[in-house]
Amino acid sequence: MGDMQVIENIRRVVTCGAGGPLLGPAMRELGVLADDPCVAVRGGRVAYAGPRAGLPAEFAGADRVDAGGRVLTTGLIDCHTHPAFVKARAEEFEMRIAGASYEQIAARGGGILTSMTAVRQADDATLLAQTVRNLRRLRNHGVVVAEGKSGYGLNTKDERRQLAAIRDAGELADMHTVRTCLAAHSLPAEYRGGDEKRAEYLRLVMEQILPAAARDGLAQRADVFCERGVFTPAETRAVAQAASRLGLHVTIHAEQLHLTGGATIAASVGAHSADHLEYLDDAGAKAMRDAGTAAVLLPGSTYALKMDKWADGRKLIDMGLCVALATDFNPGSSPVCNPAFVMNLAVMHCGLSPAEALAGFTANAAHALRLPPGEYGVVAPGARAAFGLWDVDDEREIAYYAGSNLCEVMTCDGWRS
Amino acid sequence: MGDMQVIENIRRVVTCGAGGPLLGPAMRELGVLADDPCVAVRGGRVAYAGPRAGLPAEFAGADRVDAGGRVLTTGLIDCHTHPAFVKARAEEFEMRIAGASYEQIAARGGGILTSMTAVRQADDATLLAQTVRNLRRLRNHGVVVAEGKSGYGLNTKDERRQLAAIRDAGELADMHTVRTCLAAHSLPAEYRGGDEKRAEYLRLVMEQILPAAARDGLAQRADVFCERGVFTPAETRAVAQAASRLGLHVTIHAEQLHLTGGATIAASVGAHSADHLEYLDDAGAKAMRDAGTAAVLLPGSTYALKMDKWADGRKLIDMGLCVALATDFNPGSSPVCNPAFVMNLAVMHCGLSPAEALAGFTANAAHALRLPPGEYGVVAPGARAAFGLWDVDDEREIAYYAGSNLCEVMTCDGWRS
Repeated sequence: MGDMQVIENIRRVVTCGAGGPLLGPAMRELGVLADDPCVAVRGGRVAYAGPRAGLPAEFAGADRVDAGGRVLTTGLIDCHTHPAFVKARAEEFEMRIAGASYEQIAARGGGILTSMTAVRQADDATLLAQTVRNLRRLRNHGVVVAEGKSGYGLNTKDERRQLAAIRDAGELADMHTVRTCLAAHSLPAEYRGGDEKRAEYLRLVMEQILPAAARDGLAQRADVFCERGVFTPAETRAVAQAASRLGLHVTIHAEQLHLTGGATIAASVGAHSADHLEYLDDAGAKAMRDAGTAAVLLPGSTYALKMDKWADGRKLIDMGLCVALATDFNPGSSPVCNPAFVMNLAVMHCGLSPAEALAGFTANAAHALRLPPGEYGVVAPGARAAFGLWDVDDEREIAYYAGSNLCEVMTCDGWRS
Repeated sequence: MGDMQVIENIRRVVTCGAGGPLLGPAMRELGVLADDPCVAVRGGRVAYAGPRAGLPAEFAGADRVDAGGRVLTTGLIDCHTHPAFVKARAEEFEMRIAGASYEQIAARGGGILTSMTAVRQADDATLLAQTVRNLRRLRNHGVVVAEGKSGYGLNTKDERRQLAAIRDAGELADMHTVRTCLAAHSLPAEYRGGDEKRAEYLRLVMEQILPAAARDGLAQRADVFCERGVFTPAETRAVAQAASRLGLHVTIHAEQLHLTGGATIAASVGAHSADHLEYLDDAGAKAMRDAGTAAVLLPGSTYALKMDKWADGRKLIDMGLCVALATDFNPGSSPVCNPAFVMNLAVMHCGLSPAEALAGFTANAAHALRLPPGEYGVVAPGARAAFGLWDVDDEREIAYYAGSNLCEVMTCDGWRS
């Protein structure tokens, strides 16, 4: 392809605004072009989106791309994933089906620590190949921007190896990545057995792992799993503050299995997002809204863990929070790499409309990651030329065809540079 | 490609036996080749499946196909679908989310009758194009054999148009189809309002629509929706017997929303399968087992309707029934075109293991449709050369990656002839 392209034969273009979060009722009005629209691209950026009749003359000789009558959206943004894993945990899936809880499996040394052992044992080439595979799995379901967390290394070397694998895998899979150090994901086995060892691991995280992750821009963000039996609110605050001092942005796994106060802490440290939120209370929601902390819902994990409590997305949208969705793709609690399935779950169980669910994977996910407004998550002049083409008649059908993949990614040269 | 191919670089071949249903414990032992296996094909049929070291000499010069290190299964068989629909019903999805039940929507003239109106109004070209689109959606998720029902025509002309569209769409989508006349899907509006009109429609079905559907082999089977508010057990029996007299095989939608006795009737008329079965009781299950009537579970619809009662697949397998799975792909109660998602639901909610779920879409689905044993649903000499290639390390992961599509279909020339 040359430097200029015109995408035509599009049924509908869903613009998702012009950049910035979609709050309240704006989340239901995504902006649709349905008058035989086309999208013109120059140098990897959208130059024009509108009726074909209004196409600027300079695109007369541009390469033509046939969208096959499909619905066009921006490529999806998955703002919470754990893609640097090297093996599935299908045996734990069978254990959970047989009745074991996620917490019971973790207490037996399974769960996150199983993935940690696999990552530590994998050589660099294997770790990279598997991370590429996982990013491609996401891309095959419409994702062009993936946040990726470490958290299966749990020491300086292996956390850095995971982050580097995510960075390099993004290049190989033609995806933009945002990288998050999640050294505070679980207490590794070698630090279990007493308060002193526990404190030692937290010092390691704050004084060595996070600084090493921040070096050379390997990670842009830090995350903490604030949960009963994992890290306490006080520990979460300490790690978050240490991360902030290093210039890392903060996000928190909060209120997933119990109400522990993680959301309030996220707000108080100026976290860009707090994620999960099944057990979030009103006080935490208000604190997040007032601090501008986005709410990232992960109903794929609620589903896979067979929880009976879902995040109340309806309430959060009506309160005025920026609500985003993500797959939480990981081999334990959310072996889900299909955003459309997550949108379906959000509609069926979290009170979102199909339009709101799509906003959650586009404009609002871009805001949760604080990507440059107008560059990601929208189809508008200046936006990166990475698109989802959907075999549906209307964008509301994306969340409706449950658990199926009707998306194909289309990118134009130069969209990442 | 020439007449002979060798598929190599396969991580595992799942054979699913040599043909015939997998009952009881056999459903958990699918047969796996993991010793650097290959599959050799001649004239569209499998000629050899085994270690590369044992490849017959005649294949030395055959075309090579690289499976990319993926897991190979037979192409999936979807034994219960409604693919001849022309538009989605996303607005009913939003109504259901807002609290309306499937039965309430039907009572308001929505549901099946909405799809009926759309089919009757569509011209032949539109009906065919949409049916091709729906079959391709299934094929993109691994399906190579689809049963397809009419049931949105509800008069002689439009039922035949639907069945012809399914037949022709199968050719265009490179899929094998089995066609089922479901004129007894719902009472069309013009026959509502009294016992006499109702009886008139049933006579129309038995005396005109079914004979017209059977003509020229357009349909091979007939189906009845036996349910409270739809067709009674006595009506179901009468339609089934009329179908049998015409040489059509019988299948019944049974015990989906209430226990009405449809499964017992299915058994008593020698039905090849009874489908749905959420409310099936022990007496019905025993009758089915003793009659050799397969149990086809459709958890995609249980999911989409947000029912809290799931079919008890575990019990049915342990009782010795042939248990199969299908998507029930349709625009109302199951907008699901991904067998892997149905397998995940069957594991999470119906008590199947991942291996049993895969058997439900291969060997046992072939038996539910009474396809020639050994030709469909297995990877063994004589089988049709249509395969699923899965981006997983082990076949148990197919049901584990929830609501995602990791399958690509690969067929060899001549597999359908």
